[in-house]
Amino acid sequence: MTKVKQEMKLGAFFMIPGHHVAAWRHPKAEAHHVMTFDFIKRLAQTAERGKFDMIFLADGYAVRAKNQKVLEQTVNTLFEPFTLLSALSAVTKHVGLAGTVSTTYNEPFNVARKFASLDHLSTGRAAWNVVTSNTEAEARNFNQDHHLLHSKRYERAEEFVDVVTKLWDSWEDEALVFDKESSQFADSSKIHSVNHKGEWFSVEGPLNVSRPVQGHPVVIQAGSSEAGKELAARTAEVIFTAWQTLEEAQAFYADVKGRMAKYGRSPDELKIMPGVFPVIGRTEEEAEEDKVLLAELIPEEAGISLLSGMISVDLSDYPMDGPLPDLLELDQVNGGKSRFKLLKDLADREGLTIRKLYQWIAGARGHREIKGTPEQIADQMQEWFENEAADGFNIMPPYLPGGLDDFVDQVIPVLQQRGLFRTEYTGSTLRENLGLKRPANTLINKVKETI
Amino acid sequence: MTKVKQEMKLGAFFMIPGHHVAAWRHPKAEAHHVMTFDFIKRLAQTAERGKFDMIFLADGYAVRAKNQKVLEQTVNTLFEPFTLLSALSAVTKHVGLAGTVSTTYNEPFNVARKFASLDHLSTGRAAWNVVTSNTEAEARNFNQDHHLLHSKRYERAEEFVDVVTKLWDSWEDEALVFDKESSQFADSSKIHSVNHKGEWFSVEGPLNVSRPVQGHPVVIQAGSSEAGKELAARTAEVIFTAWQTLEEAQAFYADVKGRMAKYGRSPDELKIMPGVFPVIGRTEEEAEEDKVLLAELIPEEAGISLLSGMISVDLSDYPMDGPLPDLLELDQVNGGKSRFKLLKDLADREGLTIRKLYQWIAGARGHREIKGTPEQIADQMQEWFENEAADGFNIMPPYLPGGLDDFVDQVIPVLQQRGLFRTEYTGSTLRENLGLKRPANTLINKVKETI
Repeated sequence: MTKVKQEMKLGAFFMIPGHHVAAWRHPKAEAHHVMTFDFIKRLAQTAERGKFDMIFLADGYAVRAKNQKVLEQTVNTLFEPFTLLSALSAVTKHVGLAGTVSTTYNEPFNVARKFASLDHLSTGRAAWNVVTSNTEAEARNFNQDHHLLHSKRYERAEEFVDVVTKLWDSWEDEALVFDKESSQFADSSKIHSVNHKGEWFSVEGPLNVSRPVQGHPVVIQAGSSEAGKELAARTAEVIFTAWQTLEEAQAFYADVKGRMAKYGRSPDELKIMPGVFPVIGRTEEEAEEDKVLLAELIPEEAGISLLSGMISVDLSDYPMDGPLPDLLELDQVNGGKSRFKLLKDLADREGLTIRKLYQWIAGARGHREIKGTPEQIADQMQEWFENEAADGFNIMPPYLPGGLDDFVDQVIPVLQQRGLFRTEYTGSTLRENLGLKRPANTLINKVKETI
Repeated sequence: MTKVKQEMKLGAFFMIPGHHVAAWRHPKAEAHHVMTFDFIKRLAQTAERGKFDMIFLADGYAVRAKNQKVLEQTVNTLFEPFTLLSALSAVTKHVGLAGTVSTTYNEPFNVARKFASLDHLSTGRAAWNVVTSNTEAEARNFNQDHHLLHSKRYERAEEFVDVVTKLWDSWEDEALVFDKESSQFADSSKIHSVNHKGEWFSVEGPLNVSRPVQGHPVVIQAGSSEAGKELAARTAEVIFTAWQTLEEAQAFYADVKGRMAKYGRSPDELKIMPGVFPVIGRTEEEAEEDKVLLAELIPEEAGISLLSGMISVDLSDYPMDGPLPDLLELDQVNGGKSRFKLLKDLADREGLTIRKLYQWIAGARGHREIKGTPEQIADQMQEWFENEAADGFNIMPPYLPGGLDDFVDQVIPVLQQRGLFRTEYTGSTLRENLGLKRPANTLINKVKETI
C-alpha cells in the first residue's frame, strides 16, 4: 500500500445549523446564524484547520417542510450552494468546495459555466455533487405538476454530465496566449465547439470560460440504485453514499469498483466516502446523553413528517407508539429508493414503533451513526477504511458549530496520530488532495470542430 | 433639493480587462489576469475605496466572437457573475454587487434564490440587472435554433420579474423566530405560497430562502426600446442606458420618469444611470493620445465583427475605408435595437467609413465617451447630472486596472470637492446608498395563502 492509499479522505458536510432534525434546538447550536455568512465562514475555516479535503453542501429546490406545523418547527431557509461556496472560496485557501446541483432543474451550459468559474475563483477547489432531485414540491417550482420518473431523470443526468464535461474541455489547457504584440489573446485552434445534439440537450459551445484549473471539477455522485451505480462507475470520482453495516458497505464498494473496468477506469479513480454522523463525548456516557437530548428535542410532527417523506406514506393519522402500516413495494417508489429500503428493512427486522423509527432517522438520516469518545469514533472509521468499505467519509456534524469543533479538535488528532489522515495539505488542488488524476481533454484526438 | 438628491450615484462597470475591444493589448492592461480572482478583488477594493455605489457585471451565455479570427484576437473567457460577485462579497463591506442575469435562459425559482442568497451573504448589497439576451449563439447553447422574438422575450421577462418578486416576498420580514423553547423556528403564518400560474411559468413557492435583507435586491434594467421603457417604468429601480447627447438623455429621462405615475411610483424611485467611457489624461493631449493608441490597437477583424454584429450585416467583404452598405429597417431587427439605431443614424449623418465606425464603437460601445483631464471629465458628468439627463453614471473604464485607478484617484476627488459625490458610505445597504426605499411585501394584504 502506498502512503496516499493509507490516508483517508474527509468531507465536512455542512447542513446549517446541523444534520439532526432538532439540531437548531440544541443548546449549543447557533440557530439564529443560519443566514449569517460570518458564521459559516468560521465553520469553513475550522474545516480547513482540520485539513478536510472538502466542504460539502447538499441542496434542494423547495422548502423541505410539507405542512404548516413542520414549516414552523424545522429549518427551511438556507444559502444557495454556489453563492455560498464562491464566497467561501475567498476566505479559505486549501479546502475543496463541493456543491450539489440538480440535473433536472438546470441547463448544462449554466452548470458547466458556474463550476468552471468556481474552479478558477478557488484555483482548483471545485466539486460537483450531481443529483437528480426527487420531490414533487421541487417540480411544482419549475412549471411541472409531477417530477420526472426515476429512469428518465437518470437518462437526463447521464447526458447532462456528458455535455458539461465536453464544455469544460471546449478550451484546451494551452488555449490562452495573451500575446499583445501579435494580437493573439487565444489560440483559436485550441478552442472547440461541442455541437452536442442528444435526446435532452442541444448545445453548440464552446463555453465562455477557459478550461477549469483542475481540468474538470471533481464529480461526486450519491445514487446507490442500479442506475446510480452504473452512472457512478462510468463518471463519478467520489461517491457519497449511506450504509449501516460493514458488510453492506463492503459489498457496495466491491460492486461499484468492479464495474469500472468496462469503462476503462481503475478502482483508484473513484473514492467511496460514506456519510457518518459522529456523536462525540468525552466519555461514552456523555455521547449517549447528547444523543438522548437531541432525540427528545425532536418536535413530534417534524419527526413524523421526515419519516413519512422517506417511506412515501402519510403517517400523521397513525399512533406514534404503534407499528408502521404496510408499505409500497420498492419498484413502486419514484425517488429516494435507498432510504425507503433501509427503513422498510429496519422496521421489518426490529419491529420499531413509528416514534423509534423517526428518532432513529432524524439524526444521521440513514447514514451511519458513530458514537463515543474520540478514540471510539476513530476506531469505527478505521475499521471501515481498512476493510475496503470506504476510502474516506463525509462527516455530518449533528449540530453546529459544536459538532464540527469537537471533530476537528478531538477526532482529527487521533486519526493523524494513527497515520490515517494528513497533517498538512500536500496538493495544490482538491483533485490532488483526493489523489485523483487530472483528466485528459476528451475533445482532443477526436475530430476537431472549431467555431 | 435635498442633500441626497445632490449626490450622483456611480456604478463601476467591470469588463475584464477593460471595455475597449483592444483593452487587453494596452500596455497598462493586465490581460493575463482575466481569470485571476486576486486581480478582480483588487479592482473591487479600489471601487470601494472610491465609494462607488456598486460594481456592475454584464453577462452573456456564449463566446462573443463570431469567427476564428475574432476568437483569436478578443477576450472570450470571463467569470460567471454570480460566482464572482459572491466571492467579492466576502472581501468588501460596502460596495453594491450588481449581476446581469437573463430571463430567457434561466428559471425564476433559481434566480430569485441566488439573488436572495447573495443579498444575505453581502448583508444587503445585491442588485439584478435584468436582460433578455439577444444573440443566436446563446440560443444554440440552450437547445434552440433561434432566439425568441423581441416581443416574446419581453413578455417572458415581465412575468419572470413578477414571479421573482413574489418569491422574495414569500417570507415576511419577521418570519424567523428562532425560539428553541417553544420549538418555533419560524412563524409559518408569515411564510406564503406564491401559486403563480402564468403564460410562461408555474411556480408554487415559497422560496427556500428567507426574505432578502433589502426586501428585494435592487432591480436594474437596460432596455431603451418601447417595451423596455414600459417594463422599466413599472419595475426598474435603476436604468443603465446609452445616450450620446444631452438632449437625447434628457428626453429619455423625462419619458421614462413620466411613465411611472400610472404604476403608482414617484420619479425618485428610479435612478437613471447612463454608461460613460472615461478617457482620462493629466492633459487633454495625453487623453487624446491614449484614445488614439487604443484605436490603433484594434485588430481589424475584431473591429469589423463588432460593428457587423451591432448592425446585423456581415461587413467582412466590404472595403474598410468605404461607406456602410444599406441597412435593414429598425423594425426588422430582432434584438439590440438601440445600438442599431445609433449606428445607422451616425452613419447617415456623418458618412463615416466602416473603419471609422468600428473605431468609434470599439471603446464605449455606444455609450458616451468623456475625455480629458479629471476636471473636464467631472464637468461633463456634472452637466448631465444637473440638467435632468442622469441621476448618476455607470463608469466603463477603457482598460484595467489603470482606467479604474485613474478614475478613483483623480476624478472622484474632484466630484467630492464639488459636493457631487459622497465622501463616506452612509447607508448600510446598496438600496440605502442609492436612496431607494425598502419595498413593502407585495404578498401581504393580498389574500394570504400558506402552504
